[in-house]
Amino acid sequence: MIERLAIIGVGLIGGSLARALRGAGAVGEIIGCGRSVENLELAFDLGVIDGCTRDPAVAVEEADMVFIAVPLGAMRGVFERIQGKLRDDAVITDGGSVKGSVVADAAAAFGAVPKRLVPGHPIAGTEHSGVAASFPELYHNRRVILTPLPQTEADAVEKVRTMWQATGAQVTEMDVAHHDEVLAATSHLPHMLAFGLVDLLARQQDNDEIFRYAAGGFRDFTRIASSSPIMWRDICIANARALSAMLARFGDEMTDLAETIRRRDADHLLDIFTRAKTARDAYVDGVVPPGAAGGSEESS
Amino acid sequence: MIERLAIIGVGLIGGSLARALRGAGAVGEIIGCGRSVENLELAFDLGVIDGCTRDPAVAVEEADMVFIAVPLGAMRGVFERIQGKLRDDAVITDGGSVKGSVVADAAAAFGAVPKRLVPGHPIAGTEHSGVAASFPELYHNRRVILTPLPQTEADAVEKVRTMWQATGAQVTEMDVAHHDEVLAATSHLPHMLAFGLVDLLARQQDNDEIFRYAAGGFRDFTRIASSSPIMWRDICIANARALSAMLARFGDEMTDLAETIRRRDADHLLDIFTRAKTARDAYVDGVVPPGAAGGSEESS
Repeated sequence: MIERLAIIGVGLIGGSLARALRGAGAVGEIIGCGRSVENLELAFDLGVIDGCTRDPAVAVEEADMVFIAVPLGAMRGVFERIQGKLRDDAVITDGGSVKGSVVADAAAAFGAVPKRLVPGHPIAGTEHSGVAASFPELYHNRRVILTPLPQTEADAVEKVRTMWQATGAQVTEMDVAHHDEVLAATSHLPHMLAFGLVDLLARQQDNDEIFRYAAGGFRDFTRIASSSPIMWRDICIANARALSAMLARFGDEMTDLAETIRRRDADHLLDIFTRAKTARDAYVDGVVPPGAAGGSEESS
Repeated sequence: MIERLAIIGVGLIGGSLARALRGAGAVGEIIGCGRSVENLELAFDLGVIDGCTRDPAVAVEEADMVFIAVPLGAMRGVFERIQGKLRDDAVITDGGSVKGSVVADAAAAFGAVPKRLVPGHPIAGTEHSGVAASFPELYHNRRVILTPLPQTEADAVEKVRTMWQATGAQVTEMDVAHHDEVLAATSHLPHMLAFGLVDLLARQQDNDEIFRYAAGGFRDFTRIASSSPIMWRDICIANARALSAMLARFGDEMTDLAETIRRRDADHLLDIFTRAKTARDAYVDGVVPPGAAGGSEESS
């Protein structure tokens, strides 16, 4: 049971955590903190939070749990502001999509990474932002990855794990660097492709016709291009190394594929598409793609 | 009213047309033709067709309307087989995703493009194949593009238009080459990205973990990678020129984006993502993306 939860950033992620914990009876009081008074008032009116402040230092004062769900670029500023204002036993965790940068920001702000900071990442979201888009079931059956460091205190990890389990999420642990590489592949790269595709098409001269004739698959495919530009700018900067390497590799693959199509190499095309369909169908069935364990490339 | 409809290829596309026309009372008898006896028997058992044959020449014998919905690579063989077997007043149309190759195949098989051939393309589908996946609402409110040539007879175009309208589709006309360029951008390119992404990830060494942590957005994004590999091989070959040019351009964009991320150029990233989100949100709202008319690039 969390007595007093401070949520810094009451948007889709922070708001949905508040709603889920309240629904589960797993929290006493919830203090919301953010820069937009309008959003905080809405959160209060919706019953998502019990009180609010625009100052993170005030929000965390009596909290036993602090959840930070701001864009990655704002993370260090929040750490600097709450440094020295926390209860000794307070546990800090976050919802950032990149973990290496959060750890580095914490080290810079606190002098060393706090032993009661448990970096975390709920693998959940929609393309919408703000507390109005939040809902209590967002984390139900979704994965939450925690990336504690060797010095992180075990009871702090346990408290964060218990919190996420109360939302219906499945909690696992992973190394910080490994998390950032896996997410570059599964989330950050697909977002770049969706943003890049829509941007390319919007810049075509006859783009009105192009968008008019786009079919249902296009709508699904580009849904994630409606995500928050600021959030994704910050993710790119925070995970620049892993993501740029993955993206450069994908660019090379597309250049090769263009050449394969230009050569009209039917057998090679059929191989690629069959392999992809097999892997995708297996993923949907919840099975690891067959034959995939023998892959020759490492994740970057 | 179509008296006798011959459908060559009774899969998702052909089967759904049959079901829709029957539901609308717009057709008398439907003869199905295909290579798989099992699929034809299933189509008959489901009531999708009234009779069947494995020989296109037999299927078209008494038909006043012939709809060809086979993979593009099989199109020329069908044209060659039905050449000389058609009623004088029979109208031929098709459901191929590329129109230039269909016109070229018809010219090669018939000696010249038949005046009662109306090339067509219903912009509809799912990632599933076969008559079992067909359903009568597939074309409801979807667009069908007809690409008649200057010599195509007007009453033939009208008959095909009326047929598609009976399924609930919105019918428009377009130039053959323009169709192939627009579809390269809106459909063929996104499919290449989805196939390419899944294939790249499946070849990573730790792909089991990668697929395990893939979130909901990934599922939507890659749905189209479960489409028929043979159909897509044929589309790539048939639309090789327009698609390879578009794909090479996208590869360059991704290489540039990788470099922008490596440089940590925050302003440029925010510009790209904001432009894409604006265009995508406008597309979902059914509005042409604002500011897009001033684009400096031509569609290839």
